[in-house]
Amino acid sequence: MSGNTWGRLFRVTTFGESHGRALGAVIDGCPPGIPLSEEDIQQDLERRRPGKHRGESPRKEPDRVEILSGVFEGLTLGTPIALVIWNKDPRPSAYEPLKDVFRPGHGDWSYYWKYGRRDWRGGGRASGRETVARVAAGAVARKVLATYGIEVRAYTVALGGIRAEKWDPAEAERNHLFCPDPEAYERMCARIEEARREGDSLGGVVEIRATGVPPGLGEPVFDKLDAELAKALMGIGAVKGVEIGAGFAAAEKRGSENNDPLTPEGFLSNNAGGVLAGISSGQEIICRVAVKPIPSIAKEQKTINERGEPVTIRIGGRHDVSAIPRIVPVCEAMVRLVLTDFLLRQLALKAFRTHEPLP
Amino acid sequence: MSGNTWGRLFRVTTFGESHGRALGAVIDGCPPGIPLSEEDIQQDLERRRPGKHRGESPRKEPDRVEILSGVFEGLTLGTPIALVIWNKDPRPSAYEPLKDVFRPGHGDWSYYWKYGRRDWRGGGRASGRETVARVAAGAVARKVLATYGIEVRAYTVALGGIRAEKWDPAEAERNHLFCPDPEAYERMCARIEEARREGDSLGGVVEIRATGVPPGLGEPVFDKLDAELAKALMGIGAVKGVEIGAGFAAAEKRGSENNDPLTPEGFLSNNAGGVLAGISSGQEIICRVAVKPIPSIAKEQKTINERGEPVTIRIGGRHDVSAIPRIVPVCEAMVRLVLTDFLLRQLALKAFRTHEPLP
Amino acid sequence: MSGNTWGRLFRVTTFGESHGRALGAVIDGCPPGIPLSEEDIQQDLERRRPGKHRGESPRKEPDRVEILSGVFEGLTLGTPIALVIWNKDPRPSAYEPLKDVFRPGHGDWSYYWKYGRRDWRGGGRASGRETVARVAAGAVARKVLATYGIEVRAYTVALGGIRAEKWDPAEAERNHLFCPDPEAYERMCARIEEARREGDSLGGVVEIRATGVPPGLGEPVFDKLDAELAKALMGIGAVKGVEIGAGFAAAEKRGSENNDPLTPEGFLSNNAGGVLAGISSGQEIICRVAVKPIPSIAKEQKTINERGEPVTIRIGGRHDVSAIPRIVPVCEAMVRLVLTDFLLRQLALKAFRTHEPLP
Amino acid sequence: MSGNTWGRLFRVTTFGESHGRALGAVIDGCPPGIPLSEEDIQQDLERRRPGKHRGESPRKEPDRVEILSGVFEGLTLGTPIALVIWNKDPRPSAYEPLKDVFRPGHGDWSYYWKYGRRDWRGGGRASGRETVARVAAGAVARKVLATYGIEVRAYTVALGGIRAEKWDPAEAERNHLFCPDPEAYERMCARIEEARREGDSLGGVVEIRATGVPPGLGEPVFDKLDAELAKALMGIGAVKGVEIGAGFAAAEKRGSENNDPLTPEGFLSNNAGGVLAGISSGQEIICRVAVKPIPSIAKEQKTINERGEPVTIRIGGRHDVSAIPRIVPVCEAMVRLVLTDFLLRQLALKAFRTHEPLP
Repeated sequence: MSGNTWGRLFRVTTFGESHGRALGAVIDGCPPGIPLSEEDIQQDLERRRPGKHRGESPRKEPDRVEILSGVFEGLTLGTPIALVIWNKDPRPSAYEPLKDVFRPGHGDWSYYWKYGRRDWRGGGRASGRETVARVAAGAVARKVLATYGIEVRAYTVALGGIRAEKWDPAEAERNHLFCPDPEAYERMCARIEEARREGDSLGGVVEIRATGVPPGLGEPVFDKLDAELAKALMGIGAVKGVEIGAGFAAAEKRGSENNDPLTPEGFLSNNAGGVLAGISSGQEIICRVAVKPIPSIAKEQKTINERGEPVTIRIGGRHDVSAIPRIVPVCEAMVRLVLTDFLLRQLALKAFRTHEPLP
Repeated sequence: MSGNTWGRLFRVTTFGESHGRALGAVIDGCPPGIPLSEEDIQQDLERRRPGKHRGESPRKEPDRVEILSGVFEGLTLGTPIALVIWNKDPRPSAYEPLKDVFRPGHGDWSYYWKYGRRDWRGGGRASGRETVARVAAGAVARKVLATYGIEVRAYTVALGGIRAEKWDPAEAERNHLFCPDPEAYERMCARIEEARREGDSLGGVVEIRATGVPPGLGEPVFDKLDAELAKALMGIGAVKGVEIGAGFAAAEKRGSENNDPLTPEGFLSNNAGGVLAGISSGQEIICRVAVKPIPSIAKEQKTINERGEPVTIRIGGRHDVSAIPRIVPVCEAMVRLVLTDFLLRQLALKAFRTHEPLP
Repeated sequence: MSGNTWGRLFRVTTFGESHGRALGAVIDGCPPGIPLSEEDIQQDLERRRPGKHRGESPRKEPDRVEILSGVFEGLTLGTPIALVIWNKDPRPSAYEPLKDVFRPGHGDWSYYWKYGRRDWRGGGRASGRETVARVAAGAVARKVLATYGIEVRAYTVALGGIRAEKWDPAEAERNHLFCPDPEAYERMCARIEEARREGDSLGGVVEIRATGVPPGLGEPVFDKLDAELAKALMGIGAVKGVEIGAGFAAAEKRGSENNDPLTPEGFLSNNAGGVLAGISSGQEIICRVAVKPIPSIAKEQKTINERGEPVTIRIGGRHDVSAIPRIVPVCEAMVRLVLTDFLLRQLALKAFRTHEPLP
Repeated sequence: MSGNTWGRLFRVTTFGESHGRALGAVIDGCPPGIPLSEEDIQQDLERRRPGKHRGESPRKEPDRVEILSGVFEGLTLGTPIALVIWNKDPRPSAYEPLKDVFRPGHGDWSYYWKYGRRDWRGGGRASGRETVARVAAGAVARKVLATYGIEVRAYTVALGGIRAEKWDPAEAERNHLFCPDPEAYERMCARIEEARREGDSLGGVVEIRATGVPPGLGEPVFDKLDAELAKALMGIGAVKGVEIGAGFAAAEKRGSENNDPLTPEGFLSNNAGGVLAGISSGQEIICRVAVKPIPSIAKEQKTINERGEPVTIRIGGRHDVSAIPRIVPVCEAMVRLVLTDFLLRQLALKAFRTHEPLP
């Protein structure tokens, strides 16, 4: 019951099924006076748009966003900003043959048991398409954060077992996988092509970095900054792991290696990933997420249908080989939602401490 | 501002600083009629108690819990259950020498910037001692879950780089590290001893398993079961990574390997870790967390004080070599809080579907 | 920041300004399997529709609702239900002359100080038009409540100082003021006509009754049923007072008069209004709200503009003489939102007590 | 399930039954650096203390508060502030004779149906004694508000049908009923004495005024300032009605009378009670609540027991004749909780607008 809202002061509620009429988001708590246009949001949707590259579904999604409320004369009002993206290219009939089958690795099974019924048209609410609303909402958060000089970027650091070894952020903006290593990028492309031929799919690792984050964001003890980042990122469909800073590697380090020494000039390392005791330290925030291979594959798979009978399926249709790169802007969006909410929460505290005059 | 409450229907609020008068929790939303005694909670506190083994701080913490409200004639009332654990052995003076120093890897720095002031007595609210209240609250959740046959257990699967290779849950209950592999346990003990001699500390990996979880728990899209688990676990002080099922290993798999085939007899594997599209599948829930080495070490470290001057410190006092094993029951407690809340949320939905009569 | 969401399990978020592109609501947490069509919602919008009677604004608002998500094959999915109502007849230019003037009794002044800017087109978010989204969401709640036999109806019991003396619910459905007393109705109509001629406006009292409410709804101590009803109703723009059962009259009674005696056949009176200690008693829920006269009047008024200069205004345009009767279905909607949320919350508790099997 | 927490940024959770071991509150989100001592809180508890005057229960409640956490060196830390008040004088045996009887006007009946069991010792959680925790928490809010010059005071403006006609706030601090009219006070005392002799009880009206509230507090559309005030006040046990400003009288006014004209020197009247469109206007906030006569009376009453059998009861024991004056500081406390939360929420917005530097 009711898990589609994010945030405390900056609150986002999303809606929409994969093949329904529309998807969208309502952003409540966006401060007033911020310039915001449909074009601002469109930019981020473009970053997420599939169909332009090899390895991605050929589905044509123009995905034009419309702002229905909350913006007046080009500026936010402080009232809820409703965004809608219409589904212009639904082909639910493609899913008819699988309508009573539980596709392995999909939410078909768990939705069925939870709700007693499900939208079989391409996954419905459990489809990756749901994330288009997150990206749209994230674009609003991006504008809020920009006021404070906070920027968030995500990168593909591994795909199909190939790891990026170089760190060239500018390169990541040039290639379609957002990979910071041009050589790794070429090998990733080849790996994708290979997987496509085999009718299989690939996973990978995305790294998200937030710069300009002031110290003090995050709320102990349950609503720690890293805790909310973990929730935000793990809540993206294909994500199966989240780490902050050194992450799982920290588990093998000694304290003397893992502690980040402080000097008058700043920290000498960033194993903490910019978060100390759940509160931002002022260093760059660094997280990584494990993205599983997408479960819809053309290879033959065993499963059962709603009557419990064994069946064999091959999933055709327009599916990506990997959730990467489309998940990259989704990761950015989710981190932005987290940071925006904590920014506003910390501003309340800071304003009280400095006795900000009202009104 | 206000991040010390967990949950929507089953809500836990904790309080207390490391060397203040007391720590505790208020559990709001516990159903009525559940047998609950201080002894029930004490059991779980004992599991977390330090000082009985090598590798752990010699601090004697009797940690007796008192139930202040919410229980009448041995049964819960449905009203808030307040639990208090008095700090009987505070030695804040031990922290005086470091009172204006930012200890590396600790929250001293980030708390300072967030709040403008901090409790320097052993970390205050940022201390690992805070988790005693989580464990106490988790014991109440354990009783709620038991009604539905749901059990949660955590295990040390790696410590200081040594990995458990065998899986013997009974063994984990016998040794003080909750390690399911007796040989690995011996090597872990030796590694702890070695680190202690060097004045250093160790990290590790804890695996949490929940059995008896029915399909249907978790709420799309932001409040997914795995998302809340990630938040719950990442919010534990020393945790730097969380993974579900195959986790980061899934990032290197192909879809054909990673999908768990369904048969009339059930799933053939559990790479999903019991969660599909954010909703429990009925399989065992499996998560792992990366625990960083605790930052308080006897080795010399460089840092700065509140005036920005470089200083060199050695942290003496009663510190554990590793957050393991004390973190093990904390992980169990947090997973229990998540499952209890989702159990009640799903019961609302199920009761409506079956038209449960009221009153 | 972010006050546009209602409810814990059954959650409604609304959006939209008076003269923006659209208004709407997202309902998150509606159980699956409930028949729901646009026509179901349209019915309630019709109840609220102005322009068909004397005393109301002649603005033609077709107010057609569209369901964008959450319904599949005629049944709710359990996923968020997004509703949109397009603004088809905006005439913002009518408001240009007053764009920098603070209309007395309106939110112009307080919005200005809160946000630093405001949508002057007909009140923007502070317009009574906002309530169309509440009514749409309330229609969904109506369907949920119907499953449990719970019905909510509101009545005009006073208008412009004229009180209904008779109680004929069927009559209330026949006349355009939802007044249960046919004679009072006639006098109310005359009073409206008189006020219109004078360029003035009228207030009144609406009574809301909920039948079929089982005992046990409401959560002590802050989220009491009557507390949430008070919030829900006081949050409607024109409402300045809320009372439950005997209400303010109870303040003048003695305990021996005000207590409702219990007999084996039930309660002998209902001064409590169906709520005891914040929990429904199984009796009819009865609340009343005081509705202020709408502040937009044609009579000359003194006020100031944004530069602090005194100005004299007459507010023309299409304004109702009274918020009654349009507020009647809004009151019904808000009470429905409250009851639906508490119904689901109590179902969780009851299901646990009866050990409802999962899945 | 879980209705014992108040607020979004400034969050209060209370616990405790009438005759359990203790009552208390956890305040989460109090800003750091505020001087706070047990004596500060004690002051407010004294205001609420019974037993010193005619018309009130002779129960001796020293009601000493203890601060368990969140304060260090005399200043708040920003961490949760836990407060405990021990029940030192429980006499549950006095309630034994009524343990299976539903006392009219009490929560016995509704708690029974909700939870299936109840604490019969003096009402348990449904007792008015629960409010001691609210008052303690409200004292912390008082300190926060004082930083911004906001003050809240409540007054008895009617009791047993006698209305205060004069407005002398200083007088209200001198007499034990907080009545601003010395003559009315004398008559109220006589009325109380009379009711006591008759074994009956009395209701009344309390008016709460908040001064120094800046414009801009409150969040449209559901979390309006008046909506939250209504919830806060209606959630006090004995309250059956809440009104803001002109309240129910507004229902009989014309718009031309009810609108508060604005001039360069400010508003000319305050029918709005300081709230316009749910946001504070900068005028004094004025609310009134209807307090029902307390249901425990010595007069004979008819009711039933848990077996549905008719019984006749007289409630002896130490009961007040009226919830007034003890409810007066409770009303103050609740209004303070509301204002503090909104103050912090608005500070977040204002700080963003003025680009408050971080950290």
